[in-house]
Amino acid sequence: MAGSFFKGRFLSLFDYKTEKYIVAKNRKVGLLYRLTQLTILGYIIGWVFLSKKCYQETDEAIQSSVMTKLKGVSVTNTSESGLLLWGPEDYVIPPQGEAVLFIVTNFIETPNQTLGYWIMTGQCLKKDENSNGTCEIYAWCPIERKYKPQEPLLTNAENFTIYIKNFIQFHKFGFSKSNVLEKTDNSYLKKCRYDEVLHPYCPIFRLGDITKRAGYNFQDMATFGGSIGIMIRWDCDLDKSSYCHPQYHFTRLDVSDSKKTIASGFNFRHTRYFKNAAGESYRSLIKVYGVRFHIMVHGKAGKFNIIPTAISIGSGLALMGAGAFFCDMVLLYLMKNGGSYREKKFEKAEITQDNTQEDEECSD
Amino acid sequence: MAGSFFKGRFLSLFDYKTEKYIVAKNRKVGLLYRLTQLTILGYIIGWVFLSKKCYQETDEAIQSSVMTKLKGVSVTNTSESGLLLWGPEDYVIPPQGEAVLFIVTNFIETPNQTLGYWIMTGQCLKKDENSNGTCEIYAWCPIERKYKPQEPLLTNAENFTIYIKNFIQFHKFGFSKSNVLEKTDNSYLKKCRYDEVLHPYCPIFRLGDITKRAGYNFQDMATFGGSIGIMIRWDCDLDKSSYCHPQYHFTRLDVSDSKKTIASGFNFRHTRYFKNAAGESYRSLIKVYGVRFHIMVHGKAGKFNIIPTAISIGSGLALMGAGAFFCDMVLLYLMKNGGSYREKKFEKAEITQDNTQEDEECSD
Amino acid sequence: MAGSFFKGRFLSLFDYKTEKYIVAKNRKVGLLYRLTQLTILGYIIGWVFLSKKCYQETDEAIQSSVMTKLKGVSVTNTSESGLLLWGPEDYVIPPQGEAVLFIVTNFIETPNQTLGYWIMTGQCLKKDENSNGTCEIYAWCPIERKYKPQEPLLTNAENFTIYIKNFIQFHKFGFSKSNVLEKTDNSYLKKCRYDEVLHPYCPIFRLGDITKRAGYNFQDMATFGGSIGIMIRWDCDLDKSSYCHPQYHFTRLDVSDSKKTIASGFNFRHTRYFKNAAGESYRSLIKVYGVRFHIMVHGKAGKFNIIPTAISIGSGLALMGAGAFFCDMVLLYLMKNGGSYREKKFEKAEITQDNTQEDEECSD
Repeated sequence: MAGSFFKGRFLSLFDYKTEKYIVAKNRKVGLLYRLTQLTILGYIIGWVFLSKKCYQETDEAIQSSVMTKLKGVSVTNTSESGLLLWGPEDYVIPPQGEAVLFIVTNFIETPNQTLGYWIMTGQCLKKDENSNGTCEIYAWCPIERKYKPQEPLLTNAENFTIYIKNFIQFHKFGFSKSNVLEKTDNSYLKKCRYDEVLHPYCPIFRLGDITKRAGYNFQDMATFGGSIGIMIRWDCDLDKSSYCHPQYHFTRLDVSDSKKTIASGFNFRHTRYFKNAAGESYRSLIKVYGVRFHIMVHGKAGKFNIIPTAISIGSGLALMGAGAFFCDMVLLYLMKNGGSYREKKFEKAEITQDNTQEDEECSD
Repeated sequence: MAGSFFKGRFLSLFDYKTEKYIVAKNRKVGLLYRLTQLTILGYIIGWVFLSKKCYQETDEAIQSSVMTKLKGVSVTNTSESGLLLWGPEDYVIPPQGEAVLFIVTNFIETPNQTLGYWIMTGQCLKKDENSNGTCEIYAWCPIERKYKPQEPLLTNAENFTIYIKNFIQFHKFGFSKSNVLEKTDNSYLKKCRYDEVLHPYCPIFRLGDITKRAGYNFQDMATFGGSIGIMIRWDCDLDKSSYCHPQYHFTRLDVSDSKKTIASGFNFRHTRYFKNAAGESYRSLIKVYGVRFHIMVHGKAGKFNIIPTAISIGSGLALMGAGAFFCDMVLLYLMKNGGSYREKKFEKAEITQDNTQEDEECSD
Repeated sequence: MAGSFFKGRFLSLFDYKTEKYIVAKNRKVGLLYRLTQLTILGYIIGWVFLSKKCYQETDEAIQSSVMTKLKGVSVTNTSESGLLLWGPEDYVIPPQGEAVLFIVTNFIETPNQTLGYWIMTGQCLKKDENSNGTCEIYAWCPIERKYKPQEPLLTNAENFTIYIKNFIQFHKFGFSKSNVLEKTDNSYLKKCRYDEVLHPYCPIFRLGDITKRAGYNFQDMATFGGSIGIMIRWDCDLDKSSYCHPQYHFTRLDVSDSKKTIASGFNFRHTRYFKNAAGESYRSLIKVYGVRFHIMVHGKAGKFNIIPTAISIGSGLALMGAGAFFCDMVLLYLMKNGGSYREKKFEKAEITQDNTQEDEECSD
């Protein structure tokens, strides 16, 4: 007897239980519900899946390595420094090919500075505006002349080219790629110049083109200096196996939208130290203006994954439930014969009197 | 006939179907269910929406560009180097205004080193601890003297100021901003100093204040060197159009919480090469101690988006379903008259005998 | 009367309403449904919770600070430069211990260059390949000799060691840690070398070991230069309080998978400026080949949080709903006696004639 009881219990596990529905022949609410369903379905398929690709797991933690190399020479002629030839070894600071690099376009050299006590005459009156006017100061003299640059000295800096090598990796998917595409050969790299339309994957950029694409004139920036961001964007869809190409964007970084130039311009000073035959130090102080390029790499990769797909479908279905709840409210409380539907929908469970009373007593 | 059949079929599409419910007049479970609903609703509104802002799409991939400029001078007087004047061109390494920069606060100069074979006497006995004691080595001599610095030589380095220009961008929302707020003018920038309360948006920081906010004394760090992280946090709510301001935090990076100083201190050596009249090289070896500042920018921006809102609402509703399931269990299996409710809730579908048998046969 | 009416209304709020189910004694569909439930449950527990840890809130915006220090010396002997001793102050560029650093392994020095007009003879015929052959050019002469390096000059560069200090922080959880573990002492740090198995937490690496782990021979890379990525991965489970250790990975960055060497090699030029007794400038141009190390830190931390847990459970439950819908379809439309089940499941709400007509009129 007991065996057959448990067998019955076990078999009843495989009885299929399905919710009982009330069919309300109310076409207004029926239409409303179908519209709600269609809207949610359209949203899930169109927006969540096709547009936002919510069926993909994404990796936004892109790892990136950037190397740069400049080419081009320029000649300057100033009274202090004479005729000078500038190669990449001089105008790129620092010279070791980093992702943040500064290109000298203008400079003021103060050669042969020596450190000593100087009786205050003429230029040496005040070292800086915070010091009081004293008769003698200990300073590097001659001090740097006050000079508002009118135009860049390295006139053809806009023709310099920058070769950007960028290597990226998406750790989550074990995917890596370089912006120097594998099909490119050395002869192409020797003569190509980046162009959005004609050569979108050429990794060599003319400086003047970069500033033009950022919306500024190179010569204007070159006088007082400035800062340009070169954004390399990788938007990789790893489901389409080969779709992972770099896109380049250029922005000026030191000027805000409102064109107030409070933070614009870029310059700094560096020195070269020498010693004379007697072993005494002297130096050249060089104030350089120029364009600072900051190569920023960002991007994300997406690949089909069951979890985000399930979450998206799940929450879409839950929204359908919300739609049904909304239509129920309309049917039961806004329709004229809602009361009748309420009676049908909510069936009173008439439990035998004894049990109910027992229950009532407990609940008191 | 067929036409009217399909018409009926089509029209039945717009019959509204709604789940049939059993009303159980059991106040314990009813109260339990209402409480569950209220809890879930409170959690969704209070925590998910108000506190965690789950109705927003977020962009955590902040793009940032940092430029720095130091101001201040210091004078040192040592037997090897004599009286020296240190300006930003000397004490900032590298000088080009990067986000990771080193401020010299202490140094040991070994001037006039020449490269040659040296008979081992005194200091030159062992180049480094791995070499065996030989009579002659090829080395730069005189070698650097062993010296444990007692106090920083650049005594007023804590009064130097650092001007930090930070430009950020959230690509997903096309939003960009600078920490030099647009309303600030040049005269304000000339005299302001960052202060958490009085000048929270002044981008100029006194070095001594930075270390103090990180919980350390500048003079202590200056002797052996150290490393300070300047975190700029951007927590932008783009729904409130203007709410996007930088917040600054300061941490010491080379000392762990347990105060073991195993990884603390910071120094490195660099050189200046000279040639004498005969064209022979000699150099100054300069070991510098100092504070390394690492400006790290992080942050996120949030903006209302229908997808995270739908996901949050959907999963909240699904939780309501879980609540109903839990209350069902209580009602059907824990209440005294659960059996009666079970009978009511699960209506046996009595299918006509013929079909059932057919079905049974198929399932065998 | 009215009071008792509202009291009834209020009390009915606490009536518990539960969906009415139809029990279909169809074991095929019942089994199908149970299987679906088990699959979804298994997926939620096994994959979502145990494997992917979807119950955790994650912080992927790791903040990191890296400091490096090289040790080791090498001697070179060339006709141009004579016998030279290379210490870290010479072969590490830049010297200040950054996360991106270049180690000189090979070099071509062109000493005593002077700037002037040079009658074109021999080597000075063409400055670079883009210039036409003129009789006189203004250039630094003697120009750099064309030279294809055969082997690295700093022969024991592979024995140099690099000490990497990495400090990380997860802002969201207020968690910070260093890769120099707190239990390590100074004597261990003086002699340990990183080894994946024996010393996985020793932060000191032999350069030759790094390239070997990246799959390349150091001497091969040293001749023309190259680029190596040192990835430090932090995968922190903050629920297990102490589980947060660094893992090191090494990749070559300048060679793509297809072994085409188009982007491989790494070199740049830098200069040292001198002045002779007459104050005239001359310089040494040094073209350096070497290995560029890029230390990249990435990682994420996860910690239990109720929101992702709720979202995961919620969407799992919604998937159960989808399973029930699928089984319904099977029962109602694929089973032979589906029609009978349909009639049972969908109960027609027979509303009193008057109301229905009213409703019909409205809907026209």
